[in-house]
Parts: sequence; C-alpha cells; structure tokens
Amino acid sequence: MSLQKFVPTPKFEEYKERFKDFYKLERREDGVILVQAHTNGGPIQLSVENHRSLGQLLKTIGANPENELMILTGSGDAFMMDSDPEGFVLEQESLEHWAYEYAYKDGRINVSSLINDLEIPTIGALNGPGFHTEICLMCDISICSEDSVIFDLHYDIGSVPGDGIHSCFQELLGVKRAAYALLTGEAIDAKKALEWGMINEVVPRDQLIARAYRIADHIMSQPRITRRLTTQIVRRPWRQRITNDLDGGFGIQMFGHLAKKAAMHGRAHIASTVDYVRKGRKNNFD
Amino acid sequence: MSLQKFVPTPKFEEYKERFKDFYKLERREDGVILVQAHTNGGPIQLSVENHRSLGQLLKTIGANPENELMILTGSGDAFMMDSDPEGFVLEQESLEHWAYEYAYKDGRINVSSLINDLEIPTIGALNGPGFHTEICLMCDISICSEDSVIFDLHYDIGSVPGDGIHSCFQELLGVKRAAYALLTGEAIDAKKALEWGMINEVVPRDQLIARAYRIADHIMSQPRITRRLTTQIVRRPWRQRITNDLDGGFGIQMFGHLAKKAAMHGRAHIASTVDYVRKGRKNNFD
Amino acid sequence: MSLQKFVPTPKFEEYKERFKDFYKLERREDGVILVQAHTNGGPIQLSVENHRSLGQLLKTIGANPENELMILTGSGDAFMMDSDPEGFVLEQESLEHWAYEYAYKDGRINVSSLINDLEIPTIGALNGPGFHTEICLMCDISICSEDSVIFDLHYDIGSVPGDGIHSCFQELLGVKRAAYALLTGEAIDAKKALEWGMINEVVPRDQLIARAYRIADHIMSQPRITRRLTTQIVRRPWRQRITNDLDGGFGIQMFGHLAKKAAMHGRAHIASTVDYVRKGRKNNFD
Amino acid sequence: MSLQKFVPTPKFEEYKERFKDFYKLERREDGVILVQAHTNGGPIQLSVENHRSLGQLLKTIGANPENELMILTGSGDAFMMDSDPEGFVLEQESLEHWAYEYAYKDGRINVSSLINDLEIPTIGALNGPGFHTEICLMCDISICSEDSVIFDLHYDIGSVPGDGIHSCFQELLGVKRAAYALLTGEAIDAKKALEWGMINEVVPRDQLIARAYRIADHIMSQPRITRRLTTQIVRRPWRQRITNDLDGGFGIQMFGHLAKKAAMHGRAHIASTVDYVRKGRKNNFD
Amino acid sequence: MSLQKFVPTPKFEEYKERFKDFYKLERREDGVILVQAHTNGGPIQLSVENHRSLGQLLKTIGANPENELMILTGSGDAFMMDSDPEGFVLEQESLEHWAYEYAYKDGRINVSSLINDLEIPTIGALNGPGFHTEICLMCDISICSEDSVIFDLHYDIGSVPGDGIHSCFQELLGVKRAAYALLTGEAIDAKKALEWGMINEVVPRDQLIARAYRIADHIMSQPRITRRLTTQIVRRPWRQRITNDLDGGFGIQMFGHLAKKAAMHGRAHIASTVDYVRKGRKNNFD
Amino acid sequence: MSLQKFVPTPKFEEYKERFKDFYKLERREDGVILVQAHTNGGPIQLSVENHRSLGQLLKTIGANPENELMILTGSGDAFMMDSDPEGFVLEQESLEHWAYEYAYKDGRINVSSLINDLEIPTIGALNGPGFHTEICLMCDISICSEDSVIFDLHYDIGSVPGDGIHSCFQELLGVKRAAYALLTGEAIDAKKALEWGMINEVVPRDQLIARAYRIADHIMSQPRITRRLTTQIVRRPWRQRITNDLDGGFGIQMFGHLAKKAAMHGRAHIASTVDYVRKGRKNNFD
Repeated sequence: MSLQKFVPTPKFEEYKERFKDFYKLERREDGVILVQAHTNGGPIQLSVENHRSLGQLLKTIGANPENELMILTGSGDAFMMDSDPEGFVLEQESLEHWAYEYAYKDGRINVSSLINDLEIPTIGALNGPGFHTEICLMCDISICSEDSVIFDLHYDIGSVPGDGIHSCFQELLGVKRAAYALLTGEAIDAKKALEWGMINEVVPRDQLIARAYRIADHIMSQPRITRRLTTQIVRRPWRQRITNDLDGGFGIQMFGHLAKKAAMHGRAHIASTVDYVRKGRKNNFD
Repeated sequence: MSLQKFVPTPKFEEYKERFKDFYKLERREDGVILVQAHTNGGPIQLSVENHRSLGQLLKTIGANPENELMILTGSGDAFMMDSDPEGFVLEQESLEHWAYEYAYKDGRINVSSLINDLEIPTIGALNGPGFHTEICLMCDISICSEDSVIFDLHYDIGSVPGDGIHSCFQELLGVKRAAYALLTGEAIDAKKALEWGMINEVVPRDQLIARAYRIADHIMSQPRITRRLTTQIVRRPWRQRITNDLDGGFGIQMFGHLAKKAAMHGRAHIASTVDYVRKGRKNNFD
Repeated sequence: MSLQKFVPTPKFEEYKERFKDFYKLERREDGVILVQAHTNGGPIQLSVENHRSLGQLLKTIGANPENELMILTGSGDAFMMDSDPEGFVLEQESLEHWAYEYAYKDGRINVSSLINDLEIPTIGALNGPGFHTEICLMCDISICSEDSVIFDLHYDIGSVPGDGIHSCFQELLGVKRAAYALLTGEAIDAKKALEWGMINEVVPRDQLIARAYRIADHIMSQPRITRRLTTQIVRRPWRQRITNDLDGGFGIQMFGHLAKKAAMHGRAHIASTVDYVRKGRKNNFD
Repeated sequence: MSLQKFVPTPKFEEYKERFKDFYKLERREDGVILVQAHTNGGPIQLSVENHRSLGQLLKTIGANPENELMILTGSGDAFMMDSDPEGFVLEQESLEHWAYEYAYKDGRINVSSLINDLEIPTIGALNGPGFHTEICLMCDISICSEDSVIFDLHYDIGSVPGDGIHSCFQELLGVKRAAYALLTGEAIDAKKALEWGMINEVVPRDQLIARAYRIADHIMSQPRITRRLTTQIVRRPWRQRITNDLDGGFGIQMFGHLAKKAAMHGRAHIASTVDYVRKGRKNNFD
Repeated sequence: MSLQKFVPTPKFEEYKERFKDFYKLERREDGVILVQAHTNGGPIQLSVENHRSLGQLLKTIGANPENELMILTGSGDAFMMDSDPEGFVLEQESLEHWAYEYAYKDGRINVSSLINDLEIPTIGALNGPGFHTEICLMCDISICSEDSVIFDLHYDIGSVPGDGIHSCFQELLGVKRAAYALLTGEAIDAKKALEWGMINEVVPRDQLIARAYRIADHIMSQPRITRRLTTQIVRRPWRQRITNDLDGGFGIQMFGHLAKKAAMHGRAHIASTVDYVRKGRKNNFD
Repeated sequence: MSLQKFVPTPKFEEYKERFKDFYKLERREDGVILVQAHTNGGPIQLSVENHRSLGQLLKTIGANPENELMILTGSGDAFMMDSDPEGFVLEQESLEHWAYEYAYKDGRINVSSLINDLEIPTIGALNGPGFHTEICLMCDISICSEDSVIFDLHYDIGSVPGDGIHSCFQELLGVKRAAYALLTGEAIDAKKALEWGMINEVVPRDQLIARAYRIADHIMSQPRITRRLTTQIVRRPWRQRITNDLDGGFGIQMFGHLAKKAAMHGRAHIASTVDYVRKGRKNNFD
C-alpha cells in the first residue's frame, strides 16, 4: 500500500446539486453526461454568474473519471439571446474590476476548460439561435436544431470579438468568412452552418438530444482508452488555436472595452442589437 | 510641451495628386477612402511601375491617421488581364536586376504593406476578371462583381507561383484546391469563389462600389478604437501566413525565374496565356 | 574530373521488376510514371508486406531523377476494402513487435516518403471505395472515380486514428468535419468529397487514368525546374502538417493499440466493420 | 441582483486540510501561498497517488481567486530521489490500465495544470537533487539550493522521456543539450543549471524559502491585474511548447512502455538507476 | 516606355532635415546610414513624439533604395534613462486616447518597421544604459559599449511588459531568464549580455561607432543582392516572433494600463524607478 | 502466409562497397555503424559528387533495419576545408542546371535525410575545422575534437547562407549569435562551441571515435524500441526547424546565386576565403 492515499475525485450527485441553478445534469450508467444549461429553466440569460459557472462545471466534470462523454446543450427555444436583467451590474459598477475578474479571467478559463480539462469526447447540441455559441461549436462534434442561428454580437454592441469567438470562427470558417461574420454580425442559419462545416448535423429541435445520444452510443461502443485517446487526436487543432490567439485576442478585446469606458452588456442594449436575428434578417444593415 | 514636435503625417490632398496616374483616390468626411487602381483610366495593365506603386500607396495611406477604412478596387470591366506593352522592358534588359529590385523587393513589400501597414479595416472589391487578385482577396472583407474570374497565371507563363498568390490561395482554398488552381490555372468564377469562401458577396458590377460603401457604413458605426482593434483580430491569420511562407516562396519563384533565363511578362505572352479566361474556359487544356 | 564519381541512381527497369508484385509501373518517355498498386492484380488487400512496400517504392521513385511526375492509383473496382487473409499474422504473433516495426516505423515512413522524398508533382487517382485513401488524398492533386467512397475505419475497428489519416482529414476537412468523420466512420462519397474539397475532380472510373494523364500533360508543359519548384510551393502545407502531428499522433495510436492487447487487422474483423460502405450506408449506426 | 448566484470557490482552510498528506500549505495575508510537497514530511517518494495529487492541488489553488502567487518546493534534503516502496503496485498489476489512468491522463493534467490553470505568478524552489524537476523548472521563476542536481532518469530506467521532461529540457536547454541530457541521464548541478539558464538563482538550502519570499515580495509590490497579466506574457512560451509536444510525446512514451511489457517504477530499479547522482557522478557510464 | 512613371522614393537630404530634431543622420557614399537618436543632442528622453518618430524614420529609410545598411544608436552616455519632462502630457490628459493612438498603434509600428520595412542589414549599437533597448537588440547584429546596462522597467512602473520588450527578451534569453528579467527589472550589464547572447560584441564607448562601421564594411564587401537576401534569412526568427506575440501582448499591456487608470510615464516616476540602474544595483529589491 | 513477400532491404556489405570512395563504413555486431566521410582517405574536399552521396548514403542506412545507431565523422585533421579541384566544373558549365540539380535538390535531400530518414540515434563527431559542419551538428548528439573550428563560409564567398547552415545555427545559437556568425564568418572554436551549446563534449582528436563509441554503448544499453522512440522525441525540434525554413531559405540562396551569375565553389576561391580559419583568426576583417 502506498504511503499516501488518493485525494477523492468529485461525485456526480454532489455537483449535480451544486450546479443545479445553472445546469440540469443527467448521467447514464455508462457515464454519458448530459449538460443542459439554463436560466430559470429556459434559455440562458448571460450574467457574470453563469459566465463563471461554465468553467467551474467543466473542470468538475473533467475531474471526475466516471464521466465518459459529455453532451452540452442549452434549454428552451433559444441558446442565448439575452443577458440577465441584472447580470452585469458588476460591469456597470466597475468596468476595470469586471474586465479582469469576470471577463478576461473567467472567459479564458471557460474556453480553456472545454479544450484542456476534459479527456472525454464532447458533443455540442445547439438548441436554437444564440451568441456565444462557441461553447457548442468548440465541442468535438456539433449538431444543431433546424432553427438555430449562429452569429456574433461583439462588434455590434461596440466590443472587439477576441474572447474566443474569433478563435472559433477562424478555425471553422477560415479567415475570409470569419472576418465578415465578425464585422457584420452575419446571422448564419443551420443550413448555411452545415454547408460551411460549422455543424455536423442539423435535426429538428425535438430530436436534438436523442440524436446526440445516438452519436454518443456509437462513440461509446469502443473502449475507454480508445475513446479518450481519439479525443486527443481530434481536439488538437483547437488546442493549438486557443494557445495561439486566445490570451492575446482577449487582451485586445478588454483593451478596447476599457478604452470605450462604457458597459456594453446591459439587457436592453443586447436585446436591441440582436433583434435582427429574431426577425430573420441577416444583419443590422441590410 | 514636449522637447520635440511630432513629425508630420501625410496629407490626403498631397498623395491623392502624387498617385493619380495609378490610383483614383476619394475620401469621405468620415475617413473612408476609396482606391481605384487604373491604367489610363481603365483596367490595370501590369508594369514594374504600377507594381511598385502599390506598396508606396498602401504605406502612405497607412501613415495617415485620418484614414479610417479602405476600399480597394480596380477600374473598368477587368481587374488585370494584361501587362503594359512596355511595362517589363526592365525585365528584358536585366533579368537579375529586375528579379531583385522590382519583383522580389517590391512584390514582398506590396503584400506586407496590405497586411502590416494598415491599422484600418479593408474591403477588396474585385471588379472583373484578373490575375494578382490577391490584392483584393487579402483585404479583410472581399466582394466581387458577377463577372469576376479569379485565376493564377504563373505556372502557365512558366513561372513558379510563390509571390503571395500561393499564400492567398492556400489560406482561402486549403492545400488541395490551391494546388490544383496553381498548377492548372483554373478559372474560378464569382459563383464558385463565393461557394468556396474566397469572396464574401457577389454583386452586379454597377453596384460594386455602392455595396462596398454599405458595408463600410456598418463598420464605421462603431468607434475608431473598436474598429481598429477588431481589424487586428480578423487579420491575424494573414499575418501568420505571409510570415510563414512569403519570403521563402518568393525566393523559390525568383530562383525558378532566373534558372529559366527568360523574361515572362511580355504583353503578348501574358495575353495568349490568359486568353482562355476571356473565352470562358476553365483552363488551357480542357 | 572530380576525385569521386557519382553513386548511381536507381534504374526504372530494375525497380519495375523488383516491385511488380505490389505495383504495376509504367513510365512514359517524358518521365511520367504511373503506379498502380494491386494485390494479385486486383484491389489492395492490406498486409504488413504491402504496407512496407509503399515507402520503399516512393523512396526509390524519388531517388531516380528521370521520374518527372507520378500518378498513383489502385487497381480494380475498389481501392482497399480488405486486408490480406494472412496479412497480419505478425500482428497476432507479437503485438509489440508489430507495433513498432511494421506499424509505427513503416507507417510513418510511408507518409513521409510521399511528402518528403519526391521532388516531382504527384496526382492521386482514387479508383474506388477504400480506407487508407490518404495515400491518394495527400498527393498534390487528387481525382477520383464516381464510385469512390472515402472513410476511415480506425475507430470502428477499435483503433485510434493517428497514423496520418488524421493529418489528412484535418488538413482537408477542418477540425469539425474531421472529428466527425474519424469518430463516426462517415462514408464520404465522391460528390461530397468534391464539394468538401478533398478531391479536385470526379470522373467515371474508366476515364480515371486518362484524366490523370491529361492533367499530367498540362503540368509537363512547363520545364523541369518550374515544375519541381512549384511542387515545393504547393506541398508545403502537407510538410508542416505531418511534422506537427504525425510522430505524436501515431504514438498515441500505438499506445491505444497496445493498451487494448488485441490484434485488430484480421480480415474478418475489417470486412465486417466496413460492410456498411459496401451497402451504401453512411456509417455503422444509422 | 442576478437571477443566479455565484457557485462558491474553494476555501484555503478546507483544501489545506484535504491535501495535507501530500503538501504542507501556508498562505500569507497577501495571498502568497507556499506549497511544500512531501512524503511523510520528507522528500517526495513518487507514487501514483502523489502523482495524481499534483494536478488536483494546482487546479484547486487556481480556482481560488484569493491566491496571488505560488511558491512550489519539496521537503528535506532532496526533491525526489525515490519512488514509494508500494507506490507503483498499480503499474505492476496492470501495465495497460496504469498507463492510461495514472501515467498518461494524470501526467498530462499535472503539466497542463501548472501552465494553464494558474493565473498567478509561480516560483519554483528546487530544494535538492531530483527527477521530475520540471515541476519546479516550469514555474515562471526558478531558484534552487546549492546542492540541487537536475537530471532525467527515463532513458536509464528504460522509458522514453516524453511526459513533459522533454518539453522542459528542450525549452530551457535547446535541442542539442536536451538530447544529450535525455539520452545520457546527465546530472546537471546547480552551477551548471544557472549557467545554462535553467535556473534563475542558486542559494544555500536554508535560505531557499526566504529567497523565494523575497522575490515574491517584489512581485507583490504591483497590483493584482498587473501581476496576473504579466504572468500571461511570461508564461506564453510554455503554453506553446506543451501544446505542441506534450500529448504526442507522452503517447510515444506510453507506446514504448507498453511495448516493453514491464513495470519500470519499482523502488529498487529507480534507486539503483539514480545512484550515480547520489555519488556525484555525471552519468551511469563515466 | 511604360504607360506610368515610377512614383519617386524619398531623398536622403530631405529626410535628414525632416528628422533632425530626433535623429542625426549621416550616410556614406556606399549607402551605409548612421542613425543617432537624440533629445537635444543627448540621450533620448522618451516622449510620445520621439516614440512615434521611430517608425516614421524607419519606414522612410526603408523606402529609399539608396540605403544599404543601417547603424542605429543613441547619443551621449546613456541610451534612454528618462522621459521627456512634458513628454507624456497626452497620457495624463486622456489615458484611453493615448493608449491606442500613441502607445498601441505607434509602438507596434515601431517594432514592425524595424523588422518588416528594411530590406537592408541593421547593426544596433547600444551606447549606454537604457530601457527600450529592444530597438538596438532587435537589429540583426548588436554591439554595445562597456557601460551599457539592459533592463526592462515596465513591471516596476506598474505596467505589463507586452510592447515588444517581451518578444525581444524571450527571443534572446529564453523563457526562464526572460521571465525573471521582466518580473524583477534585472539590470543586465554588458558582460552578462555578451555571455547570454543578447549582444555580439562589447567595446569601449568611444570605439562603438567605429566598430559598427568596421562590421558594416565587411558586410558591404558582398554585393547588394547577396546582402539583402542574407538579411531576410537572418531576420526570419524576429518576423516569426513578433507575428506570434506582439499584437496580443501589446493588447494585454494596454488592458492592464487602462485597468490601472493611471499615467505611468511621468519623468519623476520613471527616474525613481530606474534609479537602481544608475546606482549599479541589480534590481529594486536587493 | 501473406499474398505478397517483403521487398528486401539493403545489405551492409553491399552498400559498404558501393559507397567506399566516399565513406569508410564499419558496423559492430550490435548495429552501431561508423561512417567516416573522406576524400582519398583524408579530409572531405567538397564536390557535387560527394555532396550528392550524403543523402544517398543516409537513405540507404535508414532503409536497413539492422542499423541501430550511427556515428558520423570526417577523416584526417580537418572536416572540410577545401573543395575538390574539379568538384564544381558542373557549376561552371551551367550555373542554372547546377543550381537545381546539384545544389537545391541534393542539398535539401541531404538535410532531410539526416533528419527524416533515420529512425536511429545519431552522434556527430566533428574531427577538425570545417564548413558544412551542420552535418555533424544536426546529429542528435555532437562531440568534437579540441582543434575543431565551426564557421560558415557562404557570405564570404558571396553566397546567401540558406542551405541548412542557417537552420543549424539559428537552432543552436539563437537569432542573434547566428546572424553574426553567418554575416561575419565567425570562427567558433571548440571551447566556444561547447560554451554556446553547439557541441556536447570536446575531446582530444585521437579519442574522438572512442568517445563516440562510449556514448553509443550507453545508448545501446536500452532496447531497440526505447532507443528509437526516444530518438523521435529528441529530434523533433530539428524536424520543425527544417520544415519551417529549409525549402524557402535554400530557394533564396539559389536566387542570390543565379542573380550573381558566377560560380563560387572554385577551390582557389574557397581556399583563400577560409584561410583565416587556418591562421587562427576569428574572421576575414579583424
């Protein structure tokens, strides 16, 4: 017997409870864990709190060796189309404090957690229109509902898109389409996303989770080591991408944000900015 | 007051005049500058002189902080389908001298200027068929007229495609399509260019500039710092690409050119080589 | 006269004979060499012997300066859909010995030979469905027959896809589509391969070689140095890709293989795994 | 008030207790945390348990925003010169299971945690001779005691050095000295380590912690954001290095380990292998 | 004759006059240009004006094909140990405006100009102690006077070292020594700089320019094309380095600066911070 | 039994004979092969013939799985200080033909062979002063005799150093020292080479081979797979380096060579250029 005993790893029942206000967690016998992000049971309304919770959750899931495959999705008929009405009071109170503690630090941890802290395959299941869809798009496999719309709101709310959405779009779309999408707020519907290789499959919304499980079942058909090593192979380009341009890009975004001396995440500001997506328009100027 | 006074930056009225034989320059109040390259008012006819002028112009525009966004286009019904009848006398007179002074040096400066010397967003507006379209394609956003055709003539005139067109095609098309396009002279029409992600939008020729302004208007809706920092984010892959392979690729091209001991840019040689594009054919062998 | 005499380079007639059981070799006067891989005259049936032969052949062709362009294809109505009935006895006898000597060593040499040992342009002509199609897809230009199907069997036979197929798919498909194809065994037909940029042209099977020659004729229209230098330009992304991730990826695959303690290349195992391709299905689970 | 409440972050008193059998933790008012790794209060004796604990600890420290700077050191008169007598029973019981669960998975997490999970500056204080010194050497600043000796034992115990020690040596020593050190087990004493730039300062052992605190005091003289952003700047080369070559290198190591079909971490085997270091010799063959 | 005439390039006599308040310029018949930066004839006192002038000068020198080799040095007994008493009024007036217009924009242009805009060999001749010595250290060849001291003041004035000094130190010192130098303000004297490979030669101050000319004479012994092409070869690592980490690093620095909401470049603040260098101490805490 | 039989691999006795005019080959029972390059039994006198022979030999050694470790050295009291009196007649007869066929093609193959075609550890044993020492320096481990002098002659003979010597010097010396060594022809003696990390050990000339065998003995103490996988780990930085900058750098060198329109490898020209090394001077101008 070794001189020291293993430090315990997290237990599902414990963190299922701990994160319940942010994520509905379910785990099958075989270790397939379904993560449904929500705000009050519906679509995510972005706040500093749920922003931070993502990295916390992903690191916890990653630390539990009983998890074998993660399906990550949102809730209701949109992925994320609003901010929490009071979700950015901290940004308004102190832009500088918020910028490092809640934006730069937590934001980089979120992306890094998804890429670096999970040994297991991930399936992103985008359940509707939204911003910050990189959370689903940077999973190993990505599927979406037919009514999903992918777009970036940063530039249109007056911010510089450097928090990981740029890494995501440049990796998936290439430099040309990414520049256009980031500068114009282009609304990319499910069909276009499939055609452009951002998404692997498009399915009706009510079949989204079932389809994710079906793919998961196939992946689970191979043994643990095969699954997990294959994951390192297919995820490598993401590792390289975020190492290359996340820290610096995010720094540039924060620089721009502070130079503007204005909070940008107020609910009304975001709602009015992304209204064109709800209306089925391509951007704010056509 | 500082001990030293700022060295003045270039003034628009001065360089508008200085470059008028090469570029028609217009600038709006808000700093949006329209650059229309031309030869005698029509499509560009390539020469050592206008080749060199590009870097000179771009560096001048970049040095003037009053410029806020650049639209770059050609003139008339083609972008560049001919060389100037006397435009490469210097190549004929001394292949070696030309190779360094006008090809390698100026050519690398041209590409570097577009990528490294402009803090501002750029919109390339390809106005018709042409070679050396990398000038428009390596802008941040690229649109083209419906009758545009993108192709590379290097291999077919007996030259090695290493002067930046390879960087452009490999970045936008990937290794497989780029190899084919570079080796076969493939004529890529506007529709295909859009499908393949080389171009963001295709519009009728007479709406090309208007559309570029429309996109510019949207980009201009955000403040100067946001615009300019976002530019650094979206342009980064181009910086990496040309740092990786421009100096060496261009060296390989020049090596091949000198080994061939023949001028290749004569008007007749180019005209006959690219004739298949005018005829609507895909390449010189089908 | 130098103090030392050139060491002779390989002669076509000699190695045509030496490799005849593996490859039917033909060479035109102009140096265009056609390589038709076969097993008993028909589609390749994978074995440790023909696996090793590939690098041996490619190095030999590369060492002969009389070769000017290589067309690489298979034989019969499939590229590679089976393993040799006795082709992996060595794997069964000693997994560890096989893993280094025949899998890791020979496999890396195969890929490296194709990319690093040929100065000349290469055209891959995929002649039907198969695995290990990276041999054709990592040629400079790739064409395929209408009935070709590209897929990877590694994951489904219980292996980690790290032997170069991952490099090939990630380079041609991007991270998202590559992950899906590698994890699900997705059968990509010729039409889809063309749309996704894995393949440059699709032609009827009986015109495959003729078309390859036609493209070769065009490439041969330029002089030797132009051809060969252009090759270095268009092939550079492959060099970078395999340097980045082949040695390590293959190591991960072998690690997974040994951890599984089971031979995986038996004919019956492979045949049953890839049966869905023969049946025109997309994968093993839909 | 936001709709959701922050998920709590770890508390020092709790994890100080949780990890006490592995690490003696002390934290000053200003957030400077001292981590003294130990086995039974003395030098670390490597085991699967303490190997795993490192990543667990580093992730916990990283998740607590009250930590501001980490000093990482060992205990007693050596850093790590032995394995726990029973520390690798799991390796003996099942080489394959151990290889993934305890070596590859935990080992990569350890290195990744040090580089990716800490926003704060780190000072490694190597307290004597040892292997696996990369834990101290990959901190931002590294100091050591005068009697420290840095060496790698992998090759001499029959293993492939790919678990991060190669990343560490190649980054600090360059390719030439790293190859020699890894292949010959070269014992690099403190003076040489300083001369070669592996270490920033050498101090008497009894002043090691005091000196680390002195440097920490200076770093703490700047505000939190300055400190933490500077950390991202100085740590970037490590991020790039491990992204480039850790996953693959470690895979190659495990492949070699399984191919050898033998446990290598037994206490006697390690003790006899590293005996030359205790005797002040440079390697096992001179 | 071509249809268009060359746009003129800058003339030495003109820009010698234009920049005289910032740089004393001398050019030999053979094109060797000596640039002596000064403030009122003595050591540089940093200001927004002379900060901007550097890129303006380097681009002008680069645009004049009559320049063949540049020697870059300072004036008097120090390189740069002070800021201009009124040199950062603009920073005090508007931190945000200064941050982009004068720091981020001009600062990146400065570094880029040195690396990207000069086809010719460069010799940096550091004439005494100073900060922002990267201007001399990032020349192709670097020599210094015996009393030179290299150090970075950013961290000690409360700023994040991301404006190019990090690129310079990491390239020349490696990750470990660079982190220490950047975090502790380490004063590196000429002897140490030579030992560590930051500097190629150390000479008495009064022989500095003569020695630079001697090296220049040797370089000038080869023809123009050889010189200039060799320059591209030896400078490539700098191109790669700044492309990798300048834009982002500088963004992080500015983020930190704005988050601190304080001007940091006041003369008294800088003078007191760097006083340890004048006193021959290694840093501010020993 | 497989359907196809292995194609035979090269046999030592055969290629020992084939290469005997270029290399004296000896192989121990355990597979350690000693390669002594020579011209007429003495120091190498560079010619197009022995230049080409290097890649041919290395590929042959690499193709024979019975070789286990290679020691590579020269003969007599110098490594390479002269060219063969008639060794570059081909360069004089046709600069262009020579440039591709014998310089660019063979030269890149030489470097690539050393790095890409040998699975086995390599020890370079530099036996005296010479140019093209990259052949020994790019081995995994490098030792040299006390009277060895490392220098590059390219710039001084009027050539651009881009054929691999730049890769070698930049990897081992860093950008600053490499630029100086390449531009000034700096003669680096054994003591300095050891201090700078270009060489692992310096020994008296008459003990050089014995010492190489001693190191080889240690490396051979581990099993075949361990040795060979470790080789891939320690050699990786060389793979990355030459992939990054060899093809392009060499192209730039050839461009410069052809632009100069002069053969540069005549015996008298080389002898007079490198005479300073024989005289114990540092370069041609001090």
